[in-house]
Amino acid sequence: MTNTFETVAVFGRHSDPRVAEPMTAIAEFLSDRGVDVLVAAVVDLEIAGRRVPEDKLAPSADLVIAVGGDGTMLYATRLAVGHSVPLLGVNRGRLGFLTDVTPEAMLSSVEAVLEGDYSRETRLLLNAELQRPDGTCVTDMALNDVVLARRETGRMVDYETWVDNRYVNTHSGDGLIVATPTGSTAYALSCGGPIVQPDLDAMVLVPVCPHTLSDRPIVIPAASEVQIRLFERPETRGEITCDGYPLGALEDGDRLLVRAADDRITLIHPPGHDYYEILRSKLNWGRDSRVRRTIRA
Amino acid sequence: MTNTFETVAVFGRHSDPRVAEPMTAIAEFLSDRGVDVLVAAVVDLEIAGRRVPEDKLAPSADLVIAVGGDGTMLYATRLAVGHSVPLLGVNRGRLGFLTDVTPEAMLSSVEAVLEGDYSRETRLLLNAELQRPDGTCVTDMALNDVVLARRETGRMVDYETWVDNRYVNTHSGDGLIVATPTGSTAYALSCGGPIVQPDLDAMVLVPVCPHTLSDRPIVIPAASEVQIRLFERPETRGEITCDGYPLGALEDGDRLLVRAADDRITLIHPPGHDYYEILRSKLNWGRDSRVRRTIRA
Amino acid sequence: MTNTFETVAVFGRHSDPRVAEPMTAIAEFLSDRGVDVLVAAVVDLEIAGRRVPEDKLAPSADLVIAVGGDGTMLYATRLAVGHSVPLLGVNRGRLGFLTDVTPEAMLSSVEAVLEGDYSRETRLLLNAELQRPDGTCVTDMALNDVVLARRETGRMVDYETWVDNRYVNTHSGDGLIVATPTGSTAYALSCGGPIVQPDLDAMVLVPVCPHTLSDRPIVIPAASEVQIRLFERPETRGEITCDGYPLGALEDGDRLLVRAADDRITLIHPPGHDYYEILRSKLNWGRDSRVRRTIRA
Amino acid sequence: MTNTFETVAVFGRHSDPRVAEPMTAIAEFLSDRGVDVLVAAVVDLEIAGRRVPEDKLAPSADLVIAVGGDGTMLYATRLAVGHSVPLLGVNRGRLGFLTDVTPEAMLSSVEAVLEGDYSRETRLLLNAELQRPDGTCVTDMALNDVVLARRETGRMVDYETWVDNRYVNTHSGDGLIVATPTGSTAYALSCGGPIVQPDLDAMVLVPVCPHTLSDRPIVIPAASEVQIRLFERPETRGEITCDGYPLGALEDGDRLLVRAADDRITLIHPPGHDYYEILRSKLNWGRDSRVRRTIRA
Repeated sequence: MTNTFETVAVFGRHSDPRVAEPMTAIAEFLSDRGVDVLVAAVVDLEIAGRRVPEDKLAPSADLVIAVGGDGTMLYATRLAVGHSVPLLGVNRGRLGFLTDVTPEAMLSSVEAVLEGDYSRETRLLLNAELQRPDGTCVTDMALNDVVLARRETGRMVDYETWVDNRYVNTHSGDGLIVATPTGSTAYALSCGGPIVQPDLDAMVLVPVCPHTLSDRPIVIPAASEVQIRLFERPETRGEITCDGYPLGALEDGDRLLVRAADDRITLIHPPGHDYYEILRSKLNWGRDSRVRRTIRA
Repeated sequence: MTNTFETVAVFGRHSDPRVAEPMTAIAEFLSDRGVDVLVAAVVDLEIAGRRVPEDKLAPSADLVIAVGGDGTMLYATRLAVGHSVPLLGVNRGRLGFLTDVTPEAMLSSVEAVLEGDYSRETRLLLNAELQRPDGTCVTDMALNDVVLARRETGRMVDYETWVDNRYVNTHSGDGLIVATPTGSTAYALSCGGPIVQPDLDAMVLVPVCPHTLSDRPIVIPAASEVQIRLFERPETRGEITCDGYPLGALEDGDRLLVRAADDRITLIHPPGHDYYEILRSKLNWGRDSRVRRTIRA
Repeated sequence: MTNTFETVAVFGRHSDPRVAEPMTAIAEFLSDRGVDVLVAAVVDLEIAGRRVPEDKLAPSADLVIAVGGDGTMLYATRLAVGHSVPLLGVNRGRLGFLTDVTPEAMLSSVEAVLEGDYSRETRLLLNAELQRPDGTCVTDMALNDVVLARRETGRMVDYETWVDNRYVNTHSGDGLIVATPTGSTAYALSCGGPIVQPDLDAMVLVPVCPHTLSDRPIVIPAASEVQIRLFERPETRGEITCDGYPLGALEDGDRLLVRAADDRITLIHPPGHDYYEILRSKLNWGRDSRVRRTIRA
Repeated sequence: MTNTFETVAVFGRHSDPRVAEPMTAIAEFLSDRGVDVLVAAVVDLEIAGRRVPEDKLAPSADLVIAVGGDGTMLYATRLAVGHSVPLLGVNRGRLGFLTDVTPEAMLSSVEAVLEGDYSRETRLLLNAELQRPDGTCVTDMALNDVVLARRETGRMVDYETWVDNRYVNTHSGDGLIVATPTGSTAYALSCGGPIVQPDLDAMVLVPVCPHTLSDRPIVIPAASEVQIRLFERPETRGEITCDGYPLGALEDGDRLLVRAADDRITLIHPPGHDYYEILRSKLNWGRDSRVRRTIRA
């Protein structure tokens, strides 16, 4: 059966005991069922499984189980991208957006997945390409967002944006977020961006604390190419990060291009996965209880 | 001792069993302690206390205990205003902004209050005066807010504002909220207004869904006079409410004046009252748990 | 040539002199060039063209030129929908989002269009279907938005939402907007919604002044079906409008379904049309000039 | 007459020709009228007036005329604070919030001021005190705002706030702004803060891109003491700026105290000064023209 996972990598920030414990339990559970378990060589736990270098986990596995928070999933995505291996996220505590299996449910969820009872979902990834005037170029990918941030505290960054080579605007403020649907519930949401349902093929441009109050988030097709340049002002500089990982400084003359990556990442969900249930849980929907405007006492 | 409450009115939406029960318990508790208990004549419960007409409760009492939600407190404020009688709010369920005594703590709180162990806090009230071109005028008061709302669904209301006879702006949108600090955590908060600490002598003007994105909330001294008129457009009309109670339609030529009322309302808080604790509870502060931007898995 | 427009309807709110004048000039210009001009029978202007009933304008024409503001385009869309006839919008004053031809440029733009020098753009339309418990049903369409608004001033409306039969949330507030990309720059923008590029196949759900502060706009695929019901509370009612036109009241037990309409509307743009240029103009981008945070005097 | 200004300092970023020209014209104008003009020693322009060291300008003058943008006024405030000398702001281009004299009107405005035809306005200043665990302390003042910003790009800063020693909240996000009414229209406005009328004795706490969506701006009395500490997390650090000038890093164990400064700054306004007219101009009020929701074409 094509869906069978014979080799499974178990990955996590193993130095955290809240991660080490479920990692160990999952590895043992898999091993007992005859699965070939892979663990990163650096993991110094007593844990079932073959040790391979961290960067060989994804290429060698049929499935990566990432244990931790959503940050762990961002990192696991970097390991998995380009290797056609799906990810299953197990949270060490409460539910995460990407780690939608709780510790309580993890063994039964893993069992269901092994038996082929699961759903697959692909998520858009972004490719960021920072082109220098000298022709050199650095690139990275992002599952959540590519972020331009002002470099100097106390100053704004001025930058210009184009979508598919059409000039959009000249902005001033704290920066700009280019977010995937996945990233729309992360930093972009804190900056006034909308929630974007993960199956919508779109990106969101979210200005961060823009000087101009009508400089609002824009949702564009995922097939678009976004270009960002500094607006010529000698003193401003920006910094670019991809899912929080530094890509480099944006300086005068540089061009940052952001587009959909060629690859997507595949998430594995156990039965019963519900995007809106996670939203309701993470955003405390239904728990706010400010004074209701009732007319009669 | 001046703080002793000899006559106490117990008030609430008695037809709701979740209100009737604590009302009855409080009345009995007070009665047992020799307090002269007043209850509205319409209350058809078996409850200790002298029956008086609802509008005589506040003038006859040293303290009004309002049982219910914040809406009950808004109504009780209308009964109490002008009679120098303080209010104590008991919630029927979870904490309210104004009803800061929980059912569990209510008897011990009432006991503490009877023994003089409490704090007093005064809250700003607004006076709304709707002046017609023919010289007639209707007025009302508000503890939370005076609200101008568009009358026709699917249209905007256009209106002009003045603060202390200085022209502020011509607005288009769903309406305008003039809120007290108390009201700043009610409807105004949903419309993008700030939280205003109750001891700040201020009002907030909050445009509701303004057409112009830079038409933002303005905080002004409580001593200001706000004037609102329709902008001449034959087809628009507005409706004015005070704490949700209709005051009348705002039509061409009318002037709505909003200022601090002469009276304030006094709230009684049991020991341990903490405004920010209530905010934290009502706004779910500390309970949001979206993905954190961590760099390393 | 397939793009030739032999029969052109000229439409507008003719009682407004600022509309009547360009309407007359365009009709004469077209007539002089041998185009068969159609004008609504109710138009009492001295204007070239055959009179036909308003509802026969679109079915009989190869092109509808609508003169006025964006409201006129919303109305012209209602005439045109289902008849495969494209619209060209001419503004009576400044630029509109949909009426992107200015009075100054109108004759040269019309000439260019007649000569086949133009671009076509299709825009998503929504279909709203209000299903009553008795099996009856009323429907309408919208180019901008389908809006649920609270009916009583001073109260909130409580409602539940589903997307593709998945429960999303139970909301309280002033209402909900379901907007197209076209409508994303209209009412939805005033309520905190994002700008959605018109070629993205999406809808936006924008809660209006939501009680819960984390109840944020959600962007979903255009292929989704949105379902809205009142949350059972005897006292609340809502009103539904489509592009501002009343559809009916939303009452207990009713279901409002919103989905993409089968038809789209086609807009004709003269050469040089640029969506982002219109955005920059309408949103005053680049014209805000609040204090910049510079460090040195 | 007490209001006569016999010694006037003319100050500005003199290396900018758009500043040098009005500075020179004003100095000559004043000199011609027998006023004792002071100019900073570093100014290498041919300009009338006695040269004094920059830090002696304010102590030696009866009035400081600052030419430039609002940034120049922030810097001039630093020179003037504690010396009881009022400031008059002349803008080099369009109107500023603080520099409310335009180049066209500057000589007639200066003349009116010399003749005693002006108004005085005092503005709140903040005092920031950064206390280290070792007992050392650095301080600075601000006319606009004291800002805590996250130090590392791609990470949040976690911090706790107290008002008058009452715990308010534990926040995560890009930082916190403590703004005066003057600063409410600067950075704080970009971050969702309200406009605060300058004569209201208040400060605003504005969380910057807060993780928790209900973590909203709070307006508190100017007499309050705000305390900010990092929430213990080894990896986060913050940076503190006062009006954009670095004060220092906020590290584990540090306490940042912000309160009203003992001194206020006095602004001199020529006749006709109108705060709301400046707001309307700076915020483009009345110039937005998105589609209006009209029902009939």
